[in-house]
Amino acid sequence: MGGSVVTEKDKSLTPNRENIKRLSREIAEAGEKELILVHGGGSYGHPIADKYNLSEGYFDVSQIIGVAKTHQAMVALNSLLIESLLSYSVPAISVAPSSFTITDKGRITDMNLSNLRHYLEKGITPVSFGDVVPDRSRGFSILSGDQLAARFALELGADRLIYGIDVDGVYTSNPKLDRTARLVELLSLKDIEENIRLGGSLSTDVTGGMKGKIQEAVNALRVGIKVQIVNASKPDIIFKTLRGERVTGTLLVK
Amino acid sequence: MGGSVVTEKDKSLTPNRENIKRLSREIAEAGEKELILVHGGGSYGHPIADKYNLSEGYFDVSQIIGVAKTHQAMVALNSLLIESLLSYSVPAISVAPSSFTITDKGRITDMNLSNLRHYLEKGITPVSFGDVVPDRSRGFSILSGDQLAARFALELGADRLIYGIDVDGVYTSNPKLDRTARLVELLSLKDIEENIRLGGSLSTDVTGGMKGKIQEAVNALRVGIKVQIVNASKPDIIFKTLRGERVTGTLLVK
Repeated sequence: MGGSVVTEKDKSLTPNRENIKRLSREIAEAGEKELILVHGGGSYGHPIADKYNLSEGYFDVSQIIGVAKTHQAMVALNSLLIESLLSYSVPAISVAPSSFTITDKGRITDMNLSNLRHYLEKGITPVSFGDVVPDRSRGFSILSGDQLAARFALELGADRLIYGIDVDGVYTSNPKLDRTARLVELLSLKDIEENIRLGGSLSTDVTGGMKGKIQEAVNALRVGIKVQIVNASKPDIIFKTLRGERVTGTLLVK
Repeated sequence: MGGSVVTEKDKSLTPNRENIKRLSREIAEAGEKELILVHGGGSYGHPIADKYNLSEGYFDVSQIIGVAKTHQAMVALNSLLIESLLSYSVPAISVAPSSFTITDKGRITDMNLSNLRHYLEKGITPVSFGDVVPDRSRGFSILSGDQLAARFALELGADRLIYGIDVDGVYTSNPKLDRTARLVELLSLKDIEENIRLGGSLSTDVTGGMKGKIQEAVNALRVGIKVQIVNASKPDIIFKTLRGERVTGTLLVK
């Protein structure tokens, strides 16, 4: 669940309560038992991380309080989601990457998934999030929800990896700026690799947040995990996607 | 920090804001850099865990939502503490045992401390808590803050383990019921082992919460960690204890 879906991205520390409530209901109604949710930071994590320059790495002791504040902002957002899910009887448990994940230069190197596996076996839905985590080279790193979700999918042998964002999928150009942008419904691993090799000059828009999602998705695609990029801001799309029904969006295949 | 210190123990889901604020200030002023805080559940964790019979183990799928709700109640209490600590510029980070600790019949068997060690090295103060955690035999178990704190002290080679409670220390009988109860200022490992062997018939009150603390403390005592049981409900006691100053309380020694 993208940060732009669960928060008001332009208003600091403001949740999108309507989306949170609706998505909680859709997730509850879909009834998928083996599910891990991951959400981004949106207007919770990013403004504080930026204030303390955490995206450039950890280089000064004055950033320590920023590390703590960024994490706590993410916990606050996560709690809103968990409480909403609990109100729809989804047995959701907060799982903070900063407690069990270590990165090196921003990439996950250590991740102990014993507890997560246990939750999935027992029918509990772990809810994790983009977080600030210990980093071997940099001290601390921002770990994106995109990287985390793809890594969970890989390590736990997921069938599917679903990115819920605030547009319908991958477009030929940025649909928020270009009215002629067309949705790309099917994207193959070969297309993506070609696009990355040519520096994004093919006819897909892989800038900004979309680029990160696709780069992470590639690792999951390579082992045959089905990746879907769909619009979580529109009603019923996540419900239908979880139920395996056909929806508007981009399907990434090997 | 005992649940009876940071919450109003008799009022469901009610923090003791005065104690939380005062303790945050005392911790900030003490300036101890290598510190892990652990708090109990008080009126947050216990009522929900009791409602779903979680202390008797996990035996029915209807308890799953209770596991999730108990954890989330603890996250809510933990967030109040973290936010208070941050307001006094203590770089506090929430560390939930349910993300990295597994028990068997209620006793910790697996605990990956890499992330905690990293936080301590960087001057961050991890704040953990009694929690509901995966259990190999029972499905889930309630892990007490008392067990957790003693285990952290052992695994991380702490110099000291401090239990902050709502009375002055270990008494000859329950000071809340018996006006003739006297404070025991020094308690040796031998005294405690004798007491446990004789079923608590020696002249110390080791019932209820105190019993759990002392049983856990024994493991730390055996390897030479100094254990102090002091009154965290009274002003300045935690400040002085952290500073290594002499305070009223019970000192446990090998």
